[in-house]
Amino acid sequence: MINITLPDGNVKQYESGVSSMDIAKSISEGLARKVLVAEVNGEVWDMSRPITSDATFKLLTWDDDLGKNTFWHSSAHLMAEAVEAIYPGVKFWVGPPLEHGFYYDMDLGDRKITEDDVAKIEAKMNELVKQNATFIRSEKSKSDAIAYFTEKGDEYKLDLLQNLEDGNITFYQQGNFTDLCRGPHIPNTGHIKALKITNVAGAYWKGDEKNKQLTRLYGITFPNNKLLEEYNTMMEEARKRDHRKLGKELGIYTMNDDIGSGLILWMPNGAVIIEELEKLAKETEDEAGYKRVVTPHIAKENLYLTSGHLPYYAESMFPPMEIDGEKYYLKAMNCPHHHKIFDAEPRSYRDMPLRLAEYGTCYRYEQSGELFGLMRVRCLHMNDAHIYCTKEQFAEEFKAVNDMYIKYFKIFGIEKYVMRLSLHDPEQLGKKYVNEPELWIETEDMVRQVMIEAKVPFVEVKGEGAFYGPKIDVQIWSAIGREFTLATNQVDFAQSRRFKLTYNSSENKPDIPLIIHRAPLGTHERFIGFLLEHYAGKFPLWLAPLQCKLLPISDKFMDYTQQVCKQMRAAGIRVEIDDRSEKIGKKIRDTELSKTPYMLVIGEKEMAEASGSLRIQGKGDQGMITIHDLITRMKDLISNRITE
Amino acid sequence: MINITLPDGNVKQYESGVSSMDIAKSISEGLARKVLVAEVNGEVWDMSRPITSDATFKLLTWDDDLGKNTFWHSSAHLMAEAVEAIYPGVKFWVGPPLEHGFYYDMDLGDRKITEDDVAKIEAKMNELVKQNATFIRSEKSKSDAIAYFTEKGDEYKLDLLQNLEDGNITFYQQGNFTDLCRGPHIPNTGHIKALKITNVAGAYWKGDEKNKQLTRLYGITFPNNKLLEEYNTMMEEARKRDHRKLGKELGIYTMNDDIGSGLILWMPNGAVIIEELEKLAKETEDEAGYKRVVTPHIAKENLYLTSGHLPYYAESMFPPMEIDGEKYYLKAMNCPHHHKIFDAEPRSYRDMPLRLAEYGTCYRYEQSGELFGLMRVRCLHMNDAHIYCTKEQFAEEFKAVNDMYIKYFKIFGIEKYVMRLSLHDPEQLGKKYVNEPELWIETEDMVRQVMIEAKVPFVEVKGEGAFYGPKIDVQIWSAIGREFTLATNQVDFAQSRRFKLTYNSSENKPDIPLIIHRAPLGTHERFIGFLLEHYAGKFPLWLAPLQCKLLPISDKFMDYTQQVCKQMRAAGIRVEIDDRSEKIGKKIRDTELSKTPYMLVIGEKEMAEASGSLRIQGKGDQGMITIHDLITRMKDLISNRITE
Repeated sequence: MINITLPDGNVKQYESGVSSMDIAKSISEGLARKVLVAEVNGEVWDMSRPITSDATFKLLTWDDDLGKNTFWHSSAHLMAEAVEAIYPGVKFWVGPPLEHGFYYDMDLGDRKITEDDVAKIEAKMNELVKQNATFIRSEKSKSDAIAYFTEKGDEYKLDLLQNLEDGNITFYQQGNFTDLCRGPHIPNTGHIKALKITNVAGAYWKGDEKNKQLTRLYGITFPNNKLLEEYNTMMEEARKRDHRKLGKELGIYTMNDDIGSGLILWMPNGAVIIEELEKLAKETEDEAGYKRVVTPHIAKENLYLTSGHLPYYAESMFPPMEIDGEKYYLKAMNCPHHHKIFDAEPRSYRDMPLRLAEYGTCYRYEQSGELFGLMRVRCLHMNDAHIYCTKEQFAEEFKAVNDMYIKYFKIFGIEKYVMRLSLHDPEQLGKKYVNEPELWIETEDMVRQVMIEAKVPFVEVKGEGAFYGPKIDVQIWSAIGREFTLATNQVDFAQSRRFKLTYNSSENKPDIPLIIHRAPLGTHERFIGFLLEHYAGKFPLWLAPLQCKLLPISDKFMDYTQQVCKQMRAAGIRVEIDDRSEKIGKKIRDTELSKTPYMLVIGEKEMAEASGSLRIQGKGDQGMITIHDLITRMKDLISNRITE
Repeated sequence: MINITLPDGNVKQYESGVSSMDIAKSISEGLARKVLVAEVNGEVWDMSRPITSDATFKLLTWDDDLGKNTFWHSSAHLMAEAVEAIYPGVKFWVGPPLEHGFYYDMDLGDRKITEDDVAKIEAKMNELVKQNATFIRSEKSKSDAIAYFTEKGDEYKLDLLQNLEDGNITFYQQGNFTDLCRGPHIPNTGHIKALKITNVAGAYWKGDEKNKQLTRLYGITFPNNKLLEEYNTMMEEARKRDHRKLGKELGIYTMNDDIGSGLILWMPNGAVIIEELEKLAKETEDEAGYKRVVTPHIAKENLYLTSGHLPYYAESMFPPMEIDGEKYYLKAMNCPHHHKIFDAEPRSYRDMPLRLAEYGTCYRYEQSGELFGLMRVRCLHMNDAHIYCTKEQFAEEFKAVNDMYIKYFKIFGIEKYVMRLSLHDPEQLGKKYVNEPELWIETEDMVRQVMIEAKVPFVEVKGEGAFYGPKIDVQIWSAIGREFTLATNQVDFAQSRRFKLTYNSSENKPDIPLIIHRAPLGTHERFIGFLLEHYAGKFPLWLAPLQCKLLPISDKFMDYTQQVCKQMRAAGIRVEIDDRSEKIGKKIRDTELSKTPYMLVIGEKEMAEASGSLRIQGKGDQGMITIHDLITRMKDLISNRITE
């Protein structure tokens, strides 16, 4: 008998050779119908694979990332089966799962996949899933494997085989399709209830443009049709809300070849949003006892040798500027500059916590293939701050940072979020991570405790920490359910040592501060990109570049409209007049299209009563309102940052 | 007879060979006593030199820059005479006038000048001026000149002679001192009524550190004693107000070797001032119809080839960062980025004037020897904006910019200012200046007309324009009378052509905009440096990093003091509590020293009456005031930016 330890700690005994499916069934038949793979001693296994020794054990379904992953990997095999049925002789390269869906790279010879072909492949896949074929794993010797693909004439798989060791080679078969694959797979194709081929693209073999271009077929699948429909709706909505499209239409930002890829030029409407965000950050940080600083965008090499950015982070930095025997680097992070400000004056425990804040602009050299609209850029305006505190102050400070996030989430109507706690990997100490094993464990534990006590939803990931301490990535979901990585907190026990930062403790001895790096609003680039999608460009009043458009019905009311405009501007409202000689219907339609939240129609009656007729974006006509009441109402919504 | 044309256009006839002094006397004996040199056909001449042909003619006194210049050059000769009397055998290199005063470089052999020696030299100079020696000009052949200095054994003057052409060599003599000198000089040493040796320093011969170190003796002289006293007072006050000293004491800024020379780290108190200045600029610019943009700090080489910064401005730029076959440069100016924003959308006459504003951060590689505190730096936060307008709009726009300056001067109590209009030099067209002779003349004339109409005090300087158009430097004087170059306006007719910027005119044809570059508040660096001296660190309430310090007389009043603090903070006032267990006298003294404008003493009586006892920096005790009244008073002063 072997001992199987379940996630809740319970231990059950089974005969050696039991399969995960057997165990699942012994727990619940309903569960067994849902499970896709199992985690056995930390490895993901097929449900049918026999377990022959004691093991920790976890069943994985669609709701687990690893379950979803396997589901999509198996779907890639299904797609390959369909393609092979339609295009005999097709050769396959690799077919991995993605964050959303999967792809398979294939060599179709001279054949091209058209839109009609896509429908045919989808139909074939649907036909195949009805056969509910089982994924069968078999171990092969290297010579058998080579013989198989030599006979099949697939030089791509033969290339893959070159790098595999004998004894470690497995094949998977479902229906008529056999693939070289390390697995694991879901039990059978019947789980795949809804599917869609999402894109056909070209991809050079091994990513090298000197090689042959293969066809890359993208797909996505789901365990039920409702999920596919939700996905389709989200994707359609995401296309409409594409931040690149809205960013251009609404005059938020532009880019220019002469300036450079990934270097955003913020147009006037974007600059208004930036200012509102910075105002929010300043107010919030002032209230929370932060002090602001302003630092240059460059520094000498030595600063980054001290911080360890050189060499640990060198590949993400722009190359140096060399002059008069010095190397200057664009800063990729604000921390070293802030450390120098901490160090510019003698500090005492009375100064702690010292919270230094700056909307600092950093430069990171992302590969050009990875640049994407506002989401992946090379110039980042970061809502940065560094909190220098004592160990005793850490928990309270870290909790206050958390509270700040929650406050922002409320303001922006962000309802779903998760903190992703990235830890170090002991094997990478001294390589990817500062070699301080005890400090790593101690600080990781401190962070974990605070998150548990603050009841923040969080997951842990090993081996993704920053090089100087654990990292907390904040994942948020937009109104249409798309996930974004917003921001990063980092706990840092290494930099104060590297920079020899100390403060005079209450016992009059030098002590080393802990540092919290935090950026709740992330970067302007990514956050405004997120907001464009989140609000579909229809910003709430306080954020809207133009808050109200005044629409005089005819020139007769222009003087009065100008008075109203002046009055509203004096109250700090961003307002403009539509002074074109257009019909009022067209003026209203154009203002709706420009996504301006408020518009005020002004005619005879309105002028007579010191009023305007208010229309709100998406809500239509609100009737007449006096200018005085309108200003009061708008100022209240704006200063309290209320989303109507 | 020859015709002498006076500055007012009047023409007078004199006999050929008349001297400027003769002409001066013929105009007024009183004037003749004051004049130092004359401008004859645009050249500055000795008063005694005979005029033998028709000439334009202007008499120059101490009040003219060129008069002052000559006065100090002659004073250098006087100082040399005194030094030679005390140190026989001394050899002289050069002795030019400076912006303020003069120096002479000399080889004293093994001798050093001590403080006592300085007094001796001053006494000797005072003795010599009583002799009222005349400066006598004589032309020499090169061989005679060489013979003279060979006999004297002065290898320095012989070195100078090497580069002079025969027929162009003049000597000047006063009293016992003879010097190789191209002149001109003042009539006699008697004009020098007050003098002071200001500094003794070392200077390598020809500025090359491989050469011998000479002694450089600095001095300053005046035509009367009152001016010297004023100068002494100003210098003493300037030392107390030194922005580097105050900047450190008040926690305004710091620098760090690992970051780099001339790269300012703004500490929290400096960042507050930066924010207040930016708020002022934003408010003022919003009201004036500017739109804000935000642009990156780098761009590709091509942008600067288009703008002409490469090669025209290359020596002031940081070297490029080369990666993936591209060269990226740190921007030395914001204009090209703004031009790209202008160009990002089709523009029509209805969009004009388009005023794009940004507190942009620029990088300029000043030579390390020229770096000086906040005054000469390598990272500049510039109050920048570019106004794109039609020719018809130019005068109004330019006047509005002028008005903005005047508004700022009032706010900051700047009483003396001059606009310095720098024009092109026709001989440098195509080299230092864009080769558009007609456009130069046209725009220079437009600017001149606006300045005349606006009654702005201005002077014109040839050959100092920007490479793309005329430049207006704004000179201001601090409260203690020191001059600063604050900011620069530029009129630009070339960049829109280079960048192919156009707008659709009201006749539906593409037209080229004129561009005004303007930065009324200059850079944060220079302006805050100026303000530190101007206010002696005692910032007015609205600018003060800390506006009010609360001084509880004992811990008994701490709760109440904290309430007051909270109340004032809620009203947006920057306030702190002095919670040390010190005597109230010490708390008051320390707060005075920290230059905080307001302090509020809080004891029994104050607490009982919801009040505090107010003390104002430099004005002492103001008696009791209720917290409510205090807040009202402070908010009024702050929001109206009133200096008490």
